[in-house]
Amino acid sequence: MYKAKINVTLRPSILDPQGKAIHHALESLGYDAVEHVRMGKFVEMWIDAETEAAAQAVAQAACEKLLANPVMEDFSIVLEQVEPEAA
Amino acid sequence: MYKAKINVTLRPSILDPQGKAIHHALESLGYDAVEHVRMGKFVEMWIDAETEAAAQAVAQAACEKLLANPVMEDFSIVLEQVEPEAA
Repeated sequence: MYKAKINVTLRPSILDPQGKAIHHALESLGYDAVEHVRMGKFVEMWIDAETEAAAQAVAQAACEKLLANPVMEDFSIVLEQVEPEAA
Repeated sequence: MYKAKINVTLRPSILDPQGKAIHHALESLGYDAVEHVRMGKFVEMWIDAETEAAAQAVAQAACEKLLANPVMEDFSIVLEQVEPEAA
C-alpha cells in the first residue's frame, strides 16, 4: 500500500484570484511579510500496488486524466509506503 | 526569503465528499488500485523573513487565523529558503 501526496498548482503564468484574495486578507491582518501567495489543490490517495513504480503510474495517470488540467496546471507526486491499516 | 508550502487537510473523522467524488471517478476510469482519496488545499506562500523561525511563525499564524478551520482541518507547513527573484 502506498500513499500518494499530490499537489496540483496553477502554472506561474495563470492568474490566481484565490491566492490574491488570501494575500489581501493576510495584509489586512497585518502580515506584511507575505509577498506572494499561490493557491492549489492537495490530494491524498491510498493506492494498493506491489511496487512504488506501479503506484507512481496510477497516481500519474490520475493526475493526467482527472485531477489536473494540463493547459493550466502542474502537479507533483510524492509517494510513501504505508501499512494497509493506515487507509 | 522563504517559501512555505502549506497543506490543509480535513481531519480524518470529517466526511470528504470531494475525495469520494474523485475516488468514484477514478473507479469509473478503471483505476481499481485506488482505495481511498482525501482532498485538501495547498497554499504556497513567499515570506520575506530573516530567519526560518520568523517565517514559520508567519505561516503558522496565517494557517491558524485564515487558512484552516481548526475544528475540521489540520495543516502542515514545509519551509524552504529561496532567492527573492523566485517570487
